[in-house]
Amino acid sequence: MRITDARVIVTCPGRNFVTLKIITDEGLTGVGDATLNGRELAVAAYLSEHVLPALIGRDATRIEDTWQYLYKGAYWRRGPVTMAAISAVDTALWDILGKRAGLPVHQLLGGRSREGVTVYGHANAADVDALLVEVDRLLGEGYRAVRVQSGIPGLEKVYGVSDGAGYEPADSAVPTETVWSTEAYLDHLPGVVRRVREEFGPGPKLLHDVHHRLTPIEAARLGKSLEPYALTWLEDPVPAELQEGFRLIRRHTTTPIAVGEVFNTVFDSAQLIREQLIDYIRCSVVHAGGITHLRRIYDLAALHHVRTGAHGATDMSPVCMAASLQLGISVPNFGLQEHMPHTAETDAVFPHAYHYADGYLHPGDEPGLGIDIDEELAARHPYRAASLPVNRLADGTLHSW
Amino acid sequence: MRITDARVIVTCPGRNFVTLKIITDEGLTGVGDATLNGRELAVAAYLSEHVLPALIGRDATRIEDTWQYLYKGAYWRRGPVTMAAISAVDTALWDILGKRAGLPVHQLLGGRSREGVTVYGHANAADVDALLVEVDRLLGEGYRAVRVQSGIPGLEKVYGVSDGAGYEPADSAVPTETVWSTEAYLDHLPGVVRRVREEFGPGPKLLHDVHHRLTPIEAARLGKSLEPYALTWLEDPVPAELQEGFRLIRRHTTTPIAVGEVFNTVFDSAQLIREQLIDYIRCSVVHAGGITHLRRIYDLAALHHVRTGAHGATDMSPVCMAASLQLGISVPNFGLQEHMPHTAETDAVFPHAYHYADGYLHPGDEPGLGIDIDEELAARHPYRAASLPVNRLADGTLHSW
Amino acid sequence: MRITDARVIVTCPGRNFVTLKIITDEGLTGVGDATLNGRELAVAAYLSEHVLPALIGRDATRIEDTWQYLYKGAYWRRGPVTMAAISAVDTALWDILGKRAGLPVHQLLGGRSREGVTVYGHANAADVDALLVEVDRLLGEGYRAVRVQSGIPGLEKVYGVSDGAGYEPADSAVPTETVWSTEAYLDHLPGVVRRVREEFGPGPKLLHDVHHRLTPIEAARLGKSLEPYALTWLEDPVPAELQEGFRLIRRHTTTPIAVGEVFNTVFDSAQLIREQLIDYIRCSVVHAGGITHLRRIYDLAALHHVRTGAHGATDMSPVCMAASLQLGISVPNFGLQEHMPHTAETDAVFPHAYHYADGYLHPGDEPGLGIDIDEELAARHPYRAASLPVNRLADGTLHSW
Amino acid sequence: MRITDARVIVTCPGRNFVTLKIITDEGLTGVGDATLNGRELAVAAYLSEHVLPALIGRDATRIEDTWQYLYKGAYWRRGPVTMAAISAVDTALWDILGKRAGLPVHQLLGGRSREGVTVYGHANAADVDALLVEVDRLLGEGYRAVRVQSGIPGLEKVYGVSDGAGYEPADSAVPTETVWSTEAYLDHLPGVVRRVREEFGPGPKLLHDVHHRLTPIEAARLGKSLEPYALTWLEDPVPAELQEGFRLIRRHTTTPIAVGEVFNTVFDSAQLIREQLIDYIRCSVVHAGGITHLRRIYDLAALHHVRTGAHGATDMSPVCMAASLQLGISVPNFGLQEHMPHTAETDAVFPHAYHYADGYLHPGDEPGLGIDIDEELAARHPYRAASLPVNRLADGTLHSW
Repeated sequence: MRITDARVIVTCPGRNFVTLKIITDEGLTGVGDATLNGRELAVAAYLSEHVLPALIGRDATRIEDTWQYLYKGAYWRRGPVTMAAISAVDTALWDILGKRAGLPVHQLLGGRSREGVTVYGHANAADVDALLVEVDRLLGEGYRAVRVQSGIPGLEKVYGVSDGAGYEPADSAVPTETVWSTEAYLDHLPGVVRRVREEFGPGPKLLHDVHHRLTPIEAARLGKSLEPYALTWLEDPVPAELQEGFRLIRRHTTTPIAVGEVFNTVFDSAQLIREQLIDYIRCSVVHAGGITHLRRIYDLAALHHVRTGAHGATDMSPVCMAASLQLGISVPNFGLQEHMPHTAETDAVFPHAYHYADGYLHPGDEPGLGIDIDEELAARHPYRAASLPVNRLADGTLHSW
Repeated sequence: MRITDARVIVTCPGRNFVTLKIITDEGLTGVGDATLNGRELAVAAYLSEHVLPALIGRDATRIEDTWQYLYKGAYWRRGPVTMAAISAVDTALWDILGKRAGLPVHQLLGGRSREGVTVYGHANAADVDALLVEVDRLLGEGYRAVRVQSGIPGLEKVYGVSDGAGYEPADSAVPTETVWSTEAYLDHLPGVVRRVREEFGPGPKLLHDVHHRLTPIEAARLGKSLEPYALTWLEDPVPAELQEGFRLIRRHTTTPIAVGEVFNTVFDSAQLIREQLIDYIRCSVVHAGGITHLRRIYDLAALHHVRTGAHGATDMSPVCMAASLQLGISVPNFGLQEHMPHTAETDAVFPHAYHYADGYLHPGDEPGLGIDIDEELAARHPYRAASLPVNRLADGTLHSW
Repeated sequence: MRITDARVIVTCPGRNFVTLKIITDEGLTGVGDATLNGRELAVAAYLSEHVLPALIGRDATRIEDTWQYLYKGAYWRRGPVTMAAISAVDTALWDILGKRAGLPVHQLLGGRSREGVTVYGHANAADVDALLVEVDRLLGEGYRAVRVQSGIPGLEKVYGVSDGAGYEPADSAVPTETVWSTEAYLDHLPGVVRRVREEFGPGPKLLHDVHHRLTPIEAARLGKSLEPYALTWLEDPVPAELQEGFRLIRRHTTTPIAVGEVFNTVFDSAQLIREQLIDYIRCSVVHAGGITHLRRIYDLAALHHVRTGAHGATDMSPVCMAASLQLGISVPNFGLQEHMPHTAETDAVFPHAYHYADGYLHPGDEPGLGIDIDEELAARHPYRAASLPVNRLADGTLHSW
Repeated sequence: MRITDARVIVTCPGRNFVTLKIITDEGLTGVGDATLNGRELAVAAYLSEHVLPALIGRDATRIEDTWQYLYKGAYWRRGPVTMAAISAVDTALWDILGKRAGLPVHQLLGGRSREGVTVYGHANAADVDALLVEVDRLLGEGYRAVRVQSGIPGLEKVYGVSDGAGYEPADSAVPTETVWSTEAYLDHLPGVVRRVREEFGPGPKLLHDVHHRLTPIEAARLGKSLEPYALTWLEDPVPAELQEGFRLIRRHTTTPIAVGEVFNTVFDSAQLIREQLIDYIRCSVVHAGGITHLRRIYDLAALHHVRTGAHGATDMSPVCMAASLQLGISVPNFGLQEHMPHTAETDAVFPHAYHYADGYLHPGDEPGLGIDIDEELAARHPYRAASLPVNRLADGTLHSW
């Protein structure tokens, strides 16, 4: 089975998505997500100009060889743009293989290890009282795990807190700028989590995302101060390029740690995992090298008692979610899957088999990934430039967003 | 001084180069190299679509803030495409600052630490006898250091060995495939180096590039077998994503080790440097975050007895070379600079102040970097797709090229 | 541009300062601080007798080469006297380079990374009630961060607590002797900090300086006991020659740690930084090798999540403050700058462009460092011998002061 | 017994020496060496201006308290100037104590642990043949250990090799500049050592001093290449501020390593000793804090199988040698003492009891150190400015001398 054609589809049904579609001489097609939020067209160019010409004529079933061909063959390895492009190819080839086999991809990955993929939802609000309402709503919808984010007194805009309709941080062609105060945050947050835990008791899994904004000692303090409220995880406490930075956090608190949505290869987390500095690895299919590579990251994690916590915000397309669920239903060390539902507009462009029910996502049983892209509809939503915000301290210092 | 315009210029005077030009309201302009061999248009798109719009209106002298803005602000950090884009902006801003100050950039970096930048040339040939002729030619031209690469009996084509005119591995729109044998290489190479050392005595610095093709234990064996010939360095012995992989080499041989041309940030080499697993760090301005970031890598290296060995093949443009020389003339821990002269065609597109004389490159004393791009001439050399080769073992296994 | 003259100016406008002035053949001059509190004339002799003769005729723009020349060329490296001398030369050369370029030095260091340099003020008093008044006064003056020091019941005189007008510990030609009790201190201090935090709420950054007087386990206890009051940093908990001594503190408390005012080179803090045993590195330009070297320390710190906390007591001259602000406004990992205003008498001798406003210091935009010395006025304030105190336990044991 | 007076004597009987003389109310006097080659007047000022005033009136027998008083009381610790000053005071107080007790100082240090202090002499020459003559001469004089240094073809002047009468590197008021080539050195030296060993057989202890000029991997190669010739030690292979830099050497060679003449406190060697990265610790009394502190360094060394190798070049005065011998005759882990005889002119200024005989130095049995300074004679040799050379690579890069 040879690859005869491949194309990159950029569409913006509410937000931008980059999708790779591969076509074979047997008429089978596969799709892969290549979305890199705010940097979409770099990946699109990487694929169109530098990858697709080399794909034509290749055996579509040689998934491993193609992965190595793109990873080692590029000479310049790693990084978000490169790995999103490789991920898209890899994901699309798994989709094709599943269809060829007449099996959902998770059957090729070892089959179901569980009945459904436990998800966590996002509860966020400007203040605690409103947050409690949101948590209550999600629990009412069946969610067993909820990520709680709250406004911080004195800060106009905070990561993860929507100011109205849906939450979409990439809200402007040129980055908007927000202001951050670590002191205000560290002072306010523990009280928020306390209120949520007090209100809803020990039952619901609670999570919180720091979004890489603290130093290790600050994160250690936060983790310690949150221990009474038994978080399931504290996410992205510090920027993770210096993996040993997590050692300090780890020394001070038993609050479990999750990280990984910005990771692109196993090398971004190998030390974190081997030294057991984290508890959940949150890489995504689209940014961490596709199903082929992410499975290997998950395996290394399993060896070290680290569970999965798959990234699933709306900055990855439904194609990525479909692939993520195929992995999530099958791997032995699954932990949680993030679930931030796409808009109806987006869902329409990406008809899919997966569905939510009672706190779980189910990948469905269609052959392949169980997802496609409606190219005609996609074409009606042309790309619109949109950047993620940048973040500054009060004195103007550029801070991690 | 505000940035009023910026444009990406893709040109192919013999090979592809991507150049960023930034224009300010004071009429000063600066250039930066953004070339990523075989992936040029991904960087061009990254810049044009996602970076340039945010540059307009920014203060051109806030180099550090702009670097952080692009690095932290992208959210998705690291990797060759991202960092080449950031490098281009950073380099261009240093060029502008130098012009603004009326000083060559090296004056802003601490001034000259030496009289010239010692370079090494490339000697390569299909067999040893022809290689000796090449080494002799380079020494006659004043080179004090020579990288020696030789054909390997039984292998049709080997990295670093030209088969005629100039050496240009990116020789085809779709990657060509070469075949590799580690056994043949390990068996043949020591004899080659022995012949060169015997012929030219202890005077010339000799180097050799393994090009990431060995495992650590193989590299350890090679390093050990080359000890009698006193290499100045053995380059890129193994793929370096797993930095601790160099420990094994280091345990077995005193042959000095160089690596880094594929690195993009300090995090790619921090362990290598801190554990003193290498002796020369070979990052380039264009791929390692520009002057701002590369200087930091060099400083970390200096603390640990590691010297610079700047990458300088023709896959970086003369703009990168100009910037590299500004750093090379000024840093305290300079080691060697690679010198693979560009074609006359390329040099014409990039008029520059730097020049070679008697084994040294000199950055010149023009304000800024001392280089520009002739846009009109550049326009006459449109982009031509060209990929680097891929490499396989005899059984077909994809191997590092 | 050649150095034609250089002179050392010792002056005592209220307290002693040693200043180096370098003059070039182009008429440009630069100044550098060489003050080593209580050991001023050793540095003055080091410069006058052993350094200045070798400076005459050197190229003033070769800053890096001059640094290496003085550091490596002395053969006997490191230490406060040597490094203060080197710092003075380095700082003066940066001043000259800025003037030559027509730019404030921070433009040569990457430009502004923030709008102003956040400072912390000193609040101290014999007892808590008086201390609250002092904190209130500083907050009223706009300070966002305040270092709190208090008298300790049973101790006559305590570091950092003034007994009247200004605070000046070097109060006698021969050292005065004070008596110390770790037990009294550890018992009393937490209550002091608690009162301040309760009175002023979570807003202000609070700091405290231990002044190297504890053992690691005592410091660990103190850090732990202060956790509820969320210090921004605990300063100089133990003598730092044995860097690993901080491991024990670090294992027990999330109170952030600052240290460094007595450090002279990167080697004094490399382990502290690499093992992330501290959170703020508090070196000063004058004692840590000038702008050239301190920038390298800051960069090593940045890689490891450590921020700057520049020393800024009145034992460094306004020349050092000017240089410190040039660095502080430009480095990416700035934390805080100490601000203990000089007397009007001192300010008159050192006319400067920097100024305080609303919790920030601003370096100003004059070319170079934006500072000079009024030599005529300086001459009216001749040197007066003054030593720092020594400190003893009740039994007479010599203790760190 | 109180200190009633103290004075600093700077004299130049062929080369500069700084001597501290302390006088007590009982009429006893003591001397201490404070010489810091090329930086003499900085130490003299440190002592005269900042230390002596505080000594007057102190109990001369409280040696430990005085050491702590000067070390901790200075606030700014460590470094060559500070520690040379402290050493001088400490040495003079031991001299006084010995006289008070009517005992040679080594009796106060535990008494003789051996019959004499084994020394090594310096053999050096422009080429190997002349070197053999020198070695032969020293062996004929009874030396059991010889340090061999040789000229390097292509280098005009090399450390440790005299070009005529006596060897005195501090040969010019402003530093002379020499040129260095690591390649030429590494190529030439092993042959030199081989010749010496072949000529004189396995009997004599042979040593060689690298003088901090290599990187760790170069030093590792050298150590390995010298193994057949069974050096007693390879001295100062690399600059030692980064103590872990010795790990790499240690991994590759069994050639014993010595270092320490530039160290000032135990903190400069603690890692080297604890990790057993060296075999001989070569600190001197004058630069490492006097008898009180050096004894502690020796004790730490003893714990880790490291022996002493006391520095004894002519840049320390006979006063330092006298003190060194008192330590050397008494410590359990003595290794070797360097012996580079002072000129007759110098010996006349410093009448002493120690003497050389048959490969040993003997401290003599006079009370105290057995040394004094003839102040009248000293006054006839006024200070002459003299700096150590600086060293550059062929390209002009500043290198360790």
